[in-house]
Amino acid sequence: MTYGQGRSYKKVEVIGVSNKGIEAAIQQAVSKAQGSLEKLSWFEVQDIRGHIGKDGTVSEYQVVLKIAFELK
Amino acid sequence: MTYGQGRSYKKVEVIGVSNKGIEAAIQQAVSKAQGSLEKLSWFEVQDIRGHIGKDGTVSEYQVVLKIAFELK
Amino acid sequence: MTYGQGRSYKKVEVIGVSNKGIEAAIQQAVSKAQGSLEKLSWFEVQDIRGHIGKDGTVSEYQVVLKIAFELK
Amino acid sequence: MTYGQGRSYKKVEVIGVSNKGIEAAIQQAVSKAQGSLEKLSWFEVQDIRGHIGKDGTVSEYQVVLKIAFELK
Amino acid sequence: MTYGQGRSYKKVEVIGVSNKGIEAAIQQAVSKAQGSLEKLSWFEVQDIRGHIGKDGTVSEYQVVLKIAFELK
Amino acid sequence: MTYGQGRSYKKVEVIGVSNKGIEAAIQQAVSKAQGSLEKLSWFEVQDIRGHIGKDGTVSEYQVVLKIAFELK
Amino acid sequence: MTYGQGRSYKKVEVIGVSNKGIEAAIQQAVSKAQGSLEKLSWFEVQDIRGHIGKDGTVSEYQVVLKIAFELK
Amino acid sequence: MTYGQGRSYKKVEVIGVSNKGIEAAIQQAVSKAQGSLEKLSWFEVQDIRGHIGKDGTVSEYQVVLKIAFELK
Amino acid sequence: MTYGQGRSYKKVEVIGVSNKGIEAAIQQAVSKAQGSLEKLSWFEVQDIRGHIGKDGTVSEYQVVLKIAFELK
Amino acid sequence: MTYGQGRSYKKVEVIGVSNKGIEAAIQQAVSKAQGSLEKLSWFEVQDIRGHIGKDGTVSEYQVVLKIAFELK
Amino acid sequence: MTYGQGRSYKKVEVIGVSNKGIEAAIQQAVSKAQGSLEKLSWFEVQDIRGHIGKDGTVSEYQVVLKIAFELK
Amino acid sequence: MTYGQGRSYKKVEVIGVSNKGIEAAIQQAVSKAQGSLEKLSWFEVQDIRGHIGKDGTVSEYQVVLKIAFELK
Repeated sequence: MTYGQGRSYKKVEVIGVSNKGIEAAIQQAVSKAQGSLEKLSWFEVQDIRGHIGKDGTVSEYQVVLKIAFELK
Repeated sequence: MTYGQGRSYKKVEVIGVSNKGIEAAIQQAVSKAQGSLEKLSWFEVQDIRGHIGKDGTVSEYQVVLKIAFELK
Repeated sequence: MTYGQGRSYKKVEVIGVSNKGIEAAIQQAVSKAQGSLEKLSWFEVQDIRGHIGKDGTVSEYQVVLKIAFELK
Repeated sequence: MTYGQGRSYKKVEVIGVSNKGIEAAIQQAVSKAQGSLEKLSWFEVQDIRGHIGKDGTVSEYQVVLKIAFELK
Repeated sequence: MTYGQGRSYKKVEVIGVSNKGIEAAIQQAVSKAQGSLEKLSWFEVQDIRGHIGKDGTVSEYQVVLKIAFELK
Repeated sequence: MTYGQGRSYKKVEVIGVSNKGIEAAIQQAVSKAQGSLEKLSWFEVQDIRGHIGKDGTVSEYQVVLKIAFELK
Repeated sequence: MTYGQGRSYKKVEVIGVSNKGIEAAIQQAVSKAQGSLEKLSWFEVQDIRGHIGKDGTVSEYQVVLKIAFELK
Repeated sequence: MTYGQGRSYKKVEVIGVSNKGIEAAIQQAVSKAQGSLEKLSWFEVQDIRGHIGKDGTVSEYQVVLKIAFELK
Repeated sequence: MTYGQGRSYKKVEVIGVSNKGIEAAIQQAVSKAQGSLEKLSWFEVQDIRGHIGKDGTVSEYQVVLKIAFELK
Repeated sequence: MTYGQGRSYKKVEVIGVSNKGIEAAIQQAVSKAQGSLEKLSWFEVQDIRGHIGKDGTVSEYQVVLKIAFELK
Repeated sequence: MTYGQGRSYKKVEVIGVSNKGIEAAIQQAVSKAQGSLEKLSWFEVQDIRGHIGKDGTVSEYQVVLKIAFELK
Repeated sequence: MTYGQGRSYKKVEVIGVSNKGIEAAIQQAVSKAQGSLEKLSWFEVQDIRGHIGKDGTVSEYQVVLKIAFELK
């Protein structure tokens, strides 16, 4: 990539869910997006949420992300 | 669905338009999205707007939604 | 288009990059989206950013847009 | 109206109140504005609030709108 | 109530759920709060969301409210 | 005023400036609006700003308000 | 309190009303909360509003606060 | 104008439309407001939007502004 | 729980503090809330903050959460 | 200063603390900044917070400000 | 720069003023910052404002930016 | 520190980058700031972002923070 050159990116909004932590939930969303989109470039966290199990432990983290990739 | 299991969702932004009211405009957007996406899960209202006719009556409601669905 | 008639739109989030200015970056994103989507209708600027070259001049403008189009 | 033609709009902020529901409160505000302004064009909902009566029922809906009209 | 007199209110955040529409979901939350709090005064809508059933119809509206009441 | 009765309000955005403090700046804006509008009802503070004199003292407070009044 | 030690706080949303000014309205809300909650720790102003009397003077200040206290 | 002196401003919300660019749309709105209001002082851009023609070119820029002027 | 069935939830705002990391601070708040509230359902992160010790290391993470639970 | 002339300003974020009130906390921050920066021009209040003493009185106001000054 | 390598950036908030347009005001701020900071990397537009002359023309554009640079 | 005593703080905006996780990126920014500023007091997370490598793994976390310290 050369700065100054006309180009375009698209951002999609994806939610990753994992019981292991926030970083794992981010990676879950990125890996899923990687399967159908080419050349992911960066992500931006929009929201961090999660589910609480009956015993009062966090049973999963749900991270809402924007993922950006270049439009070729 | 089992909580704690790794999974991913996508959100798309859609606008439904109806002259019948806010709920009808939401259903309009959801039905349209249902035609091309599988297994819609939930929606979040972003904005409620509308058009005003010449006689000063609301001629349509325009509801901007995010619609989420699981990525298989 | 007739107001009051049930219809739907989708919004996608795109970033246009140009070294010529903000309007050129907007047009860059719109032209790219036009290639794969039918009948673009309007855009909304979300963010204006840019890169600064070594000599302290703005080397490119990066404009984040939402672009809306009717779902047929 | 022709797109591309220089023109201007003004937005005013109005609150409509009705005991019948959200759409009725919107129409209440639009009808009132219609009395003193010409050629209303669209509205945007800013806030939805309401009053609760002594018996715990919603006694009125208060909807805060921006209403836009062309400046001739 | 007399304006100018020292007094205090509290706001609680409640979610009402109904399959009948947005106003019904608001009333659901207000009625529930009425059971345990005295003298509810007003509400403010924070978010409107909902669940989508398998057939692509909105199966329920979830309205997030702040409900305010005077502290005696 | 009776709750539940159809009615409408308008909000205007006004800035009051005073060297005496924030409450004085609010009263300044309200008094000015009172001169041309009938029956002001409430205000909402949007922003508090001010000017700093050469000697490093706050020389004036500028308070941006929305002021609401009933439309008869 | 020792930094680094596991502990928890709760925030409640309260509105204080006073005809004397913004600081007095804050103190009104804090004093009221102090009556039913233990060991208040800090407050955060969310909104400043007020009522305007018939003569165009501010008849009361209404300050919306979050008040935080430690959960023992 | 002397800092520290009691005075008041009003802000109005106006949209300027131009096919020439963002600055031209701002000037369009300011010129229109200048026709009916005295002594405009400053503007603040709220939103930048636009329409996209059938050929995928930006056919007009729509800039939403607040325009402020002193109340005499 | 069956979707479509009238029901209500409440959200409370809690801060969890831990020196072990963000997930530990979230669990700290959830465990504390679990002690006094029944059947916690989900959480939403509002803010992530922390304290810095004299040696320049993060001595604790402070995570502000909303925790939701069903009202029976 | 002449309008239209190329110039630049910087904004810094400062917190002033005082037990006397909001205006005193603003002046505290401005006076401190005045010691190390030249020619302060204006301030913008970002947040108003405070500490609550054991007896339930506000023991100090903490006002977060942006302070702007011209870059020469 | 290699992605994945520990590094830090700082952002400063600067306002550029120019009578030539928005891009010129951005470049004005960047050039000024370049004089005292090393290796500017990117900017983010925060606000676009301006002054209106007596004849109703925009006499200058004021663009509020964040400018980021690497901390070596 | 004694509550109630006049004092001032400054906040700076810093970005920490690390391939190890969010807490490591926060510590990276804090350690860097510690080198040039005295007596850091607290931090507030503004944004969490990151870069995605060619193989679809998160190659680094970028955390935007405000860091506060007392002005002596």
